[in-house]
Amino acid sequence: MSELAERTGVPVPTIKYYVREGLLPEGEKRTPRLTDYDERHVRRLELLRILREVGDVPVEGLRRLVAATEVRGTVQELFAVAADAIAPTPPAAGPAREATRAVADRLIAEAGWHHVRAESVDRDNLAATLELLGAYDTHPRDPAELAPYLAAADQLARDEIGHLDGSKDRVGLLEEMIVGQVVFATVLTTLRRLAEEHHSYERFAEDRRD
Amino acid sequence: MSELAERTGVPVPTIKYYVREGLLPEGEKRTPRLTDYDERHVRRLELLRILREVGDVPVEGLRRLVAATEVRGTVQELFAVAADAIAPTPPAAGPAREATRAVADRLIAEAGWHHVRAESVDRDNLAATLELLGAYDTHPRDPAELAPYLAAADQLARDEIGHLDGSKDRVGLLEEMIVGQVVFATVLTTLRRLAEEHHSYERFAEDRRD
Repeated sequence: MSELAERTGVPVPTIKYYVREGLLPEGEKRTPRLTDYDERHVRRLELLRILREVGDVPVEGLRRLVAATEVRGTVQELFAVAADAIAPTPPAAGPAREATRAVADRLIAEAGWHHVRAESVDRDNLAATLELLGAYDTHPRDPAELAPYLAAADQLARDEIGHLDGSKDRVGLLEEMIVGQVVFATVLTTLRRLAEEHHSYERFAEDRRD
Repeated sequence: MSELAERTGVPVPTIKYYVREGLLPEGEKRTPRLTDYDERHVRRLELLRILREVGDVPVEGLRRLVAATEVRGTVQELFAVAADAIAPTPPAAGPAREATRAVADRLIAEAGWHHVRAESVDRDNLAATLELLGAYDTHPRDPAELAPYLAAADQLARDEIGHLDGSKDRVGLLEEMIVGQVVFATVLTTLRRLAEEHHSYERFAEDRRD
């Protein structure tokens, strides 16, 4: 186990915790003092590390994700279960949620994403964010402002799915997709803040309002 | 205070907590039992609510952000301080950090974002994510894969900054920018997962590998 820790950079107590929580399969005991770990353990640990460190996915989400890898079916069915596992739990509905859920469904339909399940957790997440945006008194935002975000999401997702290595097994594909989702979500948020710093300079560098 | 709670949807104990933490200015005491709150209180509470609920910004980040609004200078200087306040703290550097920091700086220069400060916290965040991506054994990713993300970030940031309401005061501008950053980061992550569900269906619907 100390070799496994060294190879993956995940500390031994964390590895023990993952085994205890059922997130990492136990290794094969060869002697009372020697346990074998293989490539699957290395891969699983790297996945867990990225989900925790970059994606800030809670342990409950990790558990659902690991459970998803046990489900049989098509690759796409596996992806759908995984999407719900890493989606955050939508915040409690306010009075406008029913209306914003209809707007969310319409946006998804207009984007042409007709293969998104009706019960996808992210439909509710989108509706919840629209509700919050609409309730923002000082500058409520129009759902039409989302158009460039829909276009960007569509293009990036198309690229990512297109680039997945088709020679992998289902769990390998899932890992690659999840790493891409979590890491590139963080990358994009960071890049956007950097780009805003640059463009706000272009617009406001000389502009004192204090 | 109960009127303020009703108007903003933020519970009274949370309002009291924000006042205690210095995140919300105290109202003006008119009588021992009556305190006046004004539009600034409503706006600040809406901002805090969105940052907490959507952006999951920790209290320490909120405190830095509120402190940023007290800084004098140009609008752009205010934005830069705020960007560092809401950027997450970069994870501890590993052995490759120096090299990935050079890559991060090169990516930012190639994007043409030459007004980003050398000390911007997000330069380190980008370097940290690149380090993690490079360390991912089973499918390390090439920084060149970031090109479409840079392009998307540039376009979205340009739009957002261009659409800010120029008639606002500096704190109003900051609030609008922060709400946009936090909310649209969440929106984009959600939309991307939805788009991946759709496009993975197109590619993998019939593909069983179990």
